[in-house]
Amino acid sequence: MTSYVCNYERLEDKIQTFSKFGDTGKGGVTRFSLSEDAIMARKEFECRMTAIGASLEFDDMGNLYATIPGSEDLKRIASGSHLDSVRQGGNYDGVLGVLTAMEVLETIVLEKIPHRHPFTAMVWTNEEGARFEPAMMSSGVICGKFDKEKMLQSEAKDQPGYRFQDALKASGYEGSKDNRLSTEQYRAFLELHIEQGPVLVSEGLAIGVVEGVCGMINFEFTFRGQAGHAGTTPMKYRRDALYAATKTILYLHEKLDELDEKLVYTTGKISAHPNIHTIIPDEVKFTLDARHQDPEVIKQVLAIIHQIPEEVEKCQVSYQEAWSRKTVTFTPSFVDVVEQAAKDFGYSYKRMYSGPGHDAQFVVDMLETTMIFVPSVDGHSHCELEFTPVEDCLKGCNVMLQTFLTLDEKLD
Amino acid sequence: MTSYVCNYERLEDKIQTFSKFGDTGKGGVTRFSLSEDAIMARKEFECRMTAIGASLEFDDMGNLYATIPGSEDLKRIASGSHLDSVRQGGNYDGVLGVLTAMEVLETIVLEKIPHRHPFTAMVWTNEEGARFEPAMMSSGVICGKFDKEKMLQSEAKDQPGYRFQDALKASGYEGSKDNRLSTEQYRAFLELHIEQGPVLVSEGLAIGVVEGVCGMINFEFTFRGQAGHAGTTPMKYRRDALYAATKTILYLHEKLDELDEKLVYTTGKISAHPNIHTIIPDEVKFTLDARHQDPEVIKQVLAIIHQIPEEVEKCQVSYQEAWSRKTVTFTPSFVDVVEQAAKDFGYSYKRMYSGPGHDAQFVVDMLETTMIFVPSVDGHSHCELEFTPVEDCLKGCNVMLQTFLTLDEKLD
Repeated sequence: MTSYVCNYERLEDKIQTFSKFGDTGKGGVTRFSLSEDAIMARKEFECRMTAIGASLEFDDMGNLYATIPGSEDLKRIASGSHLDSVRQGGNYDGVLGVLTAMEVLETIVLEKIPHRHPFTAMVWTNEEGARFEPAMMSSGVICGKFDKEKMLQSEAKDQPGYRFQDALKASGYEGSKDNRLSTEQYRAFLELHIEQGPVLVSEGLAIGVVEGVCGMINFEFTFRGQAGHAGTTPMKYRRDALYAATKTILYLHEKLDELDEKLVYTTGKISAHPNIHTIIPDEVKFTLDARHQDPEVIKQVLAIIHQIPEEVEKCQVSYQEAWSRKTVTFTPSFVDVVEQAAKDFGYSYKRMYSGPGHDAQFVVDMLETTMIFVPSVDGHSHCELEFTPVEDCLKGCNVMLQTFLTLDEKLD
Repeated sequence: MTSYVCNYERLEDKIQTFSKFGDTGKGGVTRFSLSEDAIMARKEFECRMTAIGASLEFDDMGNLYATIPGSEDLKRIASGSHLDSVRQGGNYDGVLGVLTAMEVLETIVLEKIPHRHPFTAMVWTNEEGARFEPAMMSSGVICGKFDKEKMLQSEAKDQPGYRFQDALKASGYEGSKDNRLSTEQYRAFLELHIEQGPVLVSEGLAIGVVEGVCGMINFEFTFRGQAGHAGTTPMKYRRDALYAATKTILYLHEKLDELDEKLVYTTGKISAHPNIHTIIPDEVKFTLDARHQDPEVIKQVLAIIHQIPEEVEKCQVSYQEAWSRKTVTFTPSFVDVVEQAAKDFGYSYKRMYSGPGHDAQFVVDMLETTMIFVPSVDGHSHCELEFTPVEDCLKGCNVMLQTFLTLDEKLD
């Protein structure tokens, strides 16, 4: 292990500076991709990276790359995340992965740390999909998951007719396809992110050694009953869609709770029709989101869903999969490197799977890839309450630096 | 018992004619109180009542009265209901009570049936409260339940600034307070209505002998948990407000089902916040409406509500009464007269309580009053599917005629 570490004050300065771009005044930011605020953040990234002698490139989806050379003619090792946020988001989701990549490069340059590979700090365009859907748009295009032409046509949610390609052109960040992250030019990818959940904080741990991204399924259930007047329909004649739905939600809880304790599932959305206090609901819908790293557990969830009868409390039940995602496994040897780095620093850690999706989950199908998590205080995410103390960010940054240097030694 | 009956063709003609005022073209009507369509219906009422020699009056709330004289100087016996409907309502709710009152008077006049009391057919203004809230506005004012000045200021839901008093003035139906239904001029009130529920149809019965209007309570429950990401928050850390709410809904079903089988209760309205499929709900609200004729049963319902703990599944529970209504009991001797009339005609019937509210429930605090129900096919109400065959309407009409004539003999 090397003895190099990143710098607290420099990292703190980066966090504070970038929190000004899109500042809501309430502790967070609204920084939609390619917005004026996001462009100001990109300019700051460029300014700081140029200052340490990095060369800048951007590709045809506006992804931004800052590269410092290595001592040998090898492919690049890259790290990055995104600068865009959801509406009234926080100062850590995404941006911290960019800032730590910047800090790692800055440390390497300032400390003159010998290294063989070129290192790249990067910014993914439109990870959140908050204004132009879908999320992880540009990594999706680069990694062959999404059709580029369709993505360019994606319309702004708040401005009909205004498309992603318009924003991309206006931003000045529409570059060459040749600059894309690719197997020709790149050897590895790393992403640091806040956990966005309470596990590390609750267990008092500093580092999440991310093994992969949980597989997930998302279903929408519909219950059809019969409307009727609250005051005139005897209970025995009722076909109450909300009663049927609540029974099914509790059935799901009962059965799913018997599966592996790492399974997470959520009935987050519910609607009733006509939703009037004096009318028996004739249609109720709710969603089920379930995630687990092991595809076998997801199969068990599906079996439990399929056991729901066609009729519950005299209401017709139907459901359909809204979408799903297979479990993503990061490069095991990289995961081991991250774990060893955490151990070497004496940081407490745990191996874990990510619940939410990240750009890195697309990249791993192209390049060897892994992720590092740092704690989210109270598990807050996608809100102005997001917080990770600088010392926790720094620990993640140090693990990232060490991972860079170890991979630099190991990789061809 | 007399041998008089009302006329099928005449009643059918009335139903068909009045269904044209506000015809939606889909089997129902939209006829808001004091709208052009409602005024056309009033004009038709006036025209037909004038044709049988009735004298017309309207009071300061626009309630409309058509009176035929009796042979003695006695107070009037009145019957009526309302001509207004909800949006896309049916051809029976309210209007049938006006049409049967008209048909009873018409039969009495045409058949020259001797009677001592003057008889009045009447139209209540704005029973539904569909455009100007609240429901039962004008009977509420006449019977001292609502403040007249407040009611006059009630604003149209679809037209800010336009008030009930504006619509009343514009209609030409703003009359004298002296013409109000009152104890000085009136001796009794009767109202025929569709059941608005499935009981009579399901049990194959012709007449509902209405004993009163069920007492009711309406509560809103709120569950407060903690929002969190669907993919990152382990189940053991969750405070899922929807889970807590569904558990409570099922608790209510379980406990309330043990009470009297005539109790009806409805959880008709539910909302979740933020209602996103990937976020654990942090706030869920639902309503509970419960109705029973016996105040003791309502007390039992309240006891069950009060047994809900302050915390369910780590979520804070609160609730408040949105409103309540005490059980209304109609004049027992009148109820007996209705029952005897049904028996005399050989019509099948049952004694029952009304779940929904009606103008008659306010009138009973002022005058001796009762109601007659006729069946609603499939229990449909407040929708274009409302239907009661003419023969069923006619049976109700005959019971109403007989009740008039019996009361005419009995009452001073």
